[in-house]
Amino acid sequence: MDLTNIKDPAFLKNLSDDELKELAAKIREFLIHKLSVTGGHLGANLGVVELTIALHKHFNSPKDKFVFDVGHQSYIHKILTGRTSDFDTLRQYKGMSGFPKRAESEHDIWETGHSSTSLSAAMGMVLARDLKGEDHFVVPIIGDGALTGGMALEALNHIGHEKKNIIVILNDNEMSIAANVGALHNALGRMRSAGKYRKMKDELELLLKKIPAVGGKLANTVERVKDSMKYFMVPGMLFEEFGFTYYGPVNGHDFDDLQENLQYAKKTEGPVLVHVMTQKGKGYVHAETDQKDKWHGVGPYKIESGEKIKKADAPPAWSQVVSDTLVQVAKEDKRVSVITPAMILGSKLENFQKAFPDRLFDVGIAEQHATTLAAGLATQGMKPFLAIYSTFLQRAYDQLVHDVCRQNLNVAFGIDRSGLVGADGETHHGVFDISFLRHLPNLVLMMPKDENEGQHMVYTSLQYNDGPIAVRYPRGNGLGVAMDTELKEIPIGTWEVLKEGKDLVVLTFGTTIPMALEASQELEDKGISVKVVNARFIKPLDELMLHHLMTEGLPILTVEEAILKGGFGSAILEFAEEHDYKGQRIKRIGIPDKYIEHGSVKELLKEVNITKEAIHDEVMNMLPSKKQRA
Amino acid sequence: MDLTNIKDPAFLKNLSDDELKELAAKIREFLIHKLSVTGGHLGANLGVVELTIALHKHFNSPKDKFVFDVGHQSYIHKILTGRTSDFDTLRQYKGMSGFPKRAESEHDIWETGHSSTSLSAAMGMVLARDLKGEDHFVVPIIGDGALTGGMALEALNHIGHEKKNIIVILNDNEMSIAANVGALHNALGRMRSAGKYRKMKDELELLLKKIPAVGGKLANTVERVKDSMKYFMVPGMLFEEFGFTYYGPVNGHDFDDLQENLQYAKKTEGPVLVHVMTQKGKGYVHAETDQKDKWHGVGPYKIESGEKIKKADAPPAWSQVVSDTLVQVAKEDKRVSVITPAMILGSKLENFQKAFPDRLFDVGIAEQHATTLAAGLATQGMKPFLAIYSTFLQRAYDQLVHDVCRQNLNVAFGIDRSGLVGADGETHHGVFDISFLRHLPNLVLMMPKDENEGQHMVYTSLQYNDGPIAVRYPRGNGLGVAMDTELKEIPIGTWEVLKEGKDLVVLTFGTTIPMALEASQELEDKGISVKVVNARFIKPLDELMLHHLMTEGLPILTVEEAILKGGFGSAILEFAEEHDYKGQRIKRIGIPDKYIEHGSVKELLKEVNITKEAIHDEVMNMLPSKKQRA
Repeated sequence: MDLTNIKDPAFLKNLSDDELKELAAKIREFLIHKLSVTGGHLGANLGVVELTIALHKHFNSPKDKFVFDVGHQSYIHKILTGRTSDFDTLRQYKGMSGFPKRAESEHDIWETGHSSTSLSAAMGMVLARDLKGEDHFVVPIIGDGALTGGMALEALNHIGHEKKNIIVILNDNEMSIAANVGALHNALGRMRSAGKYRKMKDELELLLKKIPAVGGKLANTVERVKDSMKYFMVPGMLFEEFGFTYYGPVNGHDFDDLQENLQYAKKTEGPVLVHVMTQKGKGYVHAETDQKDKWHGVGPYKIESGEKIKKADAPPAWSQVVSDTLVQVAKEDKRVSVITPAMILGSKLENFQKAFPDRLFDVGIAEQHATTLAAGLATQGMKPFLAIYSTFLQRAYDQLVHDVCRQNLNVAFGIDRSGLVGADGETHHGVFDISFLRHLPNLVLMMPKDENEGQHMVYTSLQYNDGPIAVRYPRGNGLGVAMDTELKEIPIGTWEVLKEGKDLVVLTFGTTIPMALEASQELEDKGISVKVVNARFIKPLDELMLHHLMTEGLPILTVEEAILKGGFGSAILEFAEEHDYKGQRIKRIGIPDKYIEHGSVKELLKEVNITKEAIHDEVMNMLPSKKQRA
Repeated sequence: MDLTNIKDPAFLKNLSDDELKELAAKIREFLIHKLSVTGGHLGANLGVVELTIALHKHFNSPKDKFVFDVGHQSYIHKILTGRTSDFDTLRQYKGMSGFPKRAESEHDIWETGHSSTSLSAAMGMVLARDLKGEDHFVVPIIGDGALTGGMALEALNHIGHEKKNIIVILNDNEMSIAANVGALHNALGRMRSAGKYRKMKDELELLLKKIPAVGGKLANTVERVKDSMKYFMVPGMLFEEFGFTYYGPVNGHDFDDLQENLQYAKKTEGPVLVHVMTQKGKGYVHAETDQKDKWHGVGPYKIESGEKIKKADAPPAWSQVVSDTLVQVAKEDKRVSVITPAMILGSKLENFQKAFPDRLFDVGIAEQHATTLAAGLATQGMKPFLAIYSTFLQRAYDQLVHDVCRQNLNVAFGIDRSGLVGADGETHHGVFDISFLRHLPNLVLMMPKDENEGQHMVYTSLQYNDGPIAVRYPRGNGLGVAMDTELKEIPIGTWEVLKEGKDLVVLTFGTTIPMALEASQELEDKGISVKVVNARFIKPLDELMLHHLMTEGLPILTVEEAILKGGFGSAILEFAEEHDYKGQRIKRIGIPDKYIEHGSVKELLKEVNITKEAIHDEVMNMLPSKKQRA
């Protein structure tokens, strides 16, 4: 069987069990080979090969609706729906997305990237189906990690209440992005060890029905006797309490077990939860034995040895610099603790965890809780540092507004993966944070020019005692600059002149500083003298410097790797308006009002015109007389 | 006993049961009388009189930490901590807040307003306590409604996992702001009817301990036998599954029952949940018999009759206009359904519910789920309308970014209580929405000048087929204008000139239009001709009109009842920058970079200088030559 010949999943209906197994093996081999070149979410996908095949065999997509949570485990779904040959361009610019994409296929009906959205989306589809009087299945597939997200729990509560037909597949791989935490995880553990129940279910239901209903005082007791009998038999009583019929635990790598339970689920009225146990990385020895989930999302690797192919001598990762600084500060200051929403690995917090196991709180995928937990710590004089990706901090916007900034609490935020992130694409770019943070009263927001300034900013964030403070930093590696051995505080609201100039000033910060410096060098050669300022505080602005610049009347160009609306450049426009600098010339470069797809950061920056060349050209346009001479 | 003599809760320690009951009666009488004049959250507070007294008797605040969820039920706490005489100024400008306020008392350690934050905050305090090696209790008090908020569920999951000492008081009044919904609610119902269990608990634990541990194959079975025996005895097994020790259900109006269970809770290691049943409105007949929770938050009323004292002949409430329009549109368009996060009453959706019970989805306090549920409906060609308060939409920011706007789905939003809301104060003002919505690609955002335009905008939002669209409207009543009988579409991105003028143009929308018109009339008398534009589309802007205005070079003054940073005025600054209108004069009026406290909207507008006078003066300042002549 050639996977590239698959056009749609209908062919699965006629496959024998042996053929299904053969197909599974082929898909695994394909993924292991393809991803060794392109990189991608290997572990998660190897875990759901049989599950995805079984789903496509027993349901009829797109009439039946599959809703993948998170979405990075949809590779097999992509193969079975005719996209095998697109894997060469996986996660590449203009290539196939690593997540479901409606534009790619009619089988992709819901786009994701963030976790815990599938149950809500699926329930919307269920309500639509029933309002329209249609007849089809809706099947969200959600991991055990994503289930702890508050939104998924809100959805469970609503679904259990409405009693409509929906089949939730719980893909329990015992490990979300990092080892899973939380009481729900423990409850799942008890279910896993409980062994099968479904086979006894019919007999049990029959038996329970035979117990006659009684009225009066005894009614409750009889109900409870029934429930406790059920409790003995049903490992997933937690879900039954939520109003679901529970099937499981199912061996997610055994077609017989999968198919039998899916058939039961299809025949059951009301909400059903099928608890499927899968093994991440199944079928690739290096990923199977991976205790730390380092095979969750990978770059290119050597298949035989499992060795990751890395660029030699890369500077330290931004996350690592932040994490190392946290260790250093925490040694001196007992008030410091670190909170992470299931991102010990992503935020490179292993060292901190090792050094201070009691002061590292992994709360699971729970950004809202993480943020207000930090606020609670801060009320008691502690110094919490919340390490969180920019795109996931979006989940905690209200907690920032209502709990942290309104109460002006000393919570420090490390906003990781700010700016464009590359291959993960539009769901993961951290380009909104300036616009959703800048208007929050009391918040300090900064971004370092390099990893050395980065370590000082992390230190500054933990010395600061006047309220919330955030340092944002990009995905990937630092610039390779020398690191000061002594940490120092950076005065709040101060910028730094990186290069003097008298014709125009570029205000920029973080990743766009190098391109501004390069552009200004080129302009220098044309006789145009451009000042470049490291505007490292996005809020508060360096008002002193701004007054100087605007009193001089120097034209200002702002450059930011963030959405323009409401961003840093707008802050400069607002400043000029507030202080009545009439006629002050200001132009802005940044990300336009649209979502940006996946690709390398370099390609994407070019697409949105945030480049050395763009800065060069904009400066020339702003100085027409110079342009003529140049 | 004179309540005004209470300085702190220590006196409670020595009170007899009879004295406690007498105190409870006094407090009830006090609240019923005081609130009949000031208004406030009567029902919720009458329900927790005994509970709050018992908590303050058995714990030592502020050493022990009470964390009130939502916070509007903290009136008795305020009385017991020495604030009785401040009730005359309850919820009034510069007066006592209706929520806990750290500035008011050392007993207020956590400020709220939004629901579902208490467990996370309390857990932060627990972690701080244990890191500091301190010894005290942390006691969050959370309602059954707030428990369905995703953040609270995230916290339950974390707390159950960490196994640290915390005593959660579940205040189960069977009714959050509206009748409670969801599977959790049903589970609570089963617990309530199960009768007492705590008294048997010790014997049960003893019994279970006597069952010997076995190894091998039988181990699991024996564990399950134990669990199922427990399940028979313990009504709150759901919470036990989450890792809590459950006590209850407790009669929240019976001091004996309360005190006995609190004492058990204090002696128990690990997380405890005390399930307390209370009756909202207890002790005031009109509130007790209130099926629809109309006594949740009230204005002034006549004590004897329970009659609400209302201004005669007020124009229809904004929420009512929106709701009536939804009914009208839904009659013609079967795709229309309405989603509310526990706000049927607040959003005045009773008529819609009556007319279309199958098309009104109350999802409980679950703004994230509500938003993505709407997105799910929209993927299937339906027309969901999410009616939500501006301040609560903050909870769904990521769902807007990631699910709704990114997928460009046809979800309509009715953003209620936009702008300053008055007595509820800083946690409830809807002043951030423009700044957190304006930078989202694909979103249309509008605000009507009056309720007639309001109905047309609701209609427009449901006719629109190009993506998400939101109409924001203020708290309170419309202007009393005549209503068109036929609904019509307002062309997207079009503004309306309300008054011609040639010296300056005021761009404004919604609530600030009347003051702009008044100011312009006064200026007219001084020979200054001000154009006033109803800038009803905040996004997209009326670019055609803006090009005209800026080509003319007319000075522009923007006025908005919203935070200035990143707001509408900034959009105008950005427009001028993007299109290179050099030297275009623009000034902005709006809310400065701080949180605004409670008070009447009029008082607050004066405080932040959004008034007819401020507009008048700013226009004069912008036209210095005119000013001289005037």
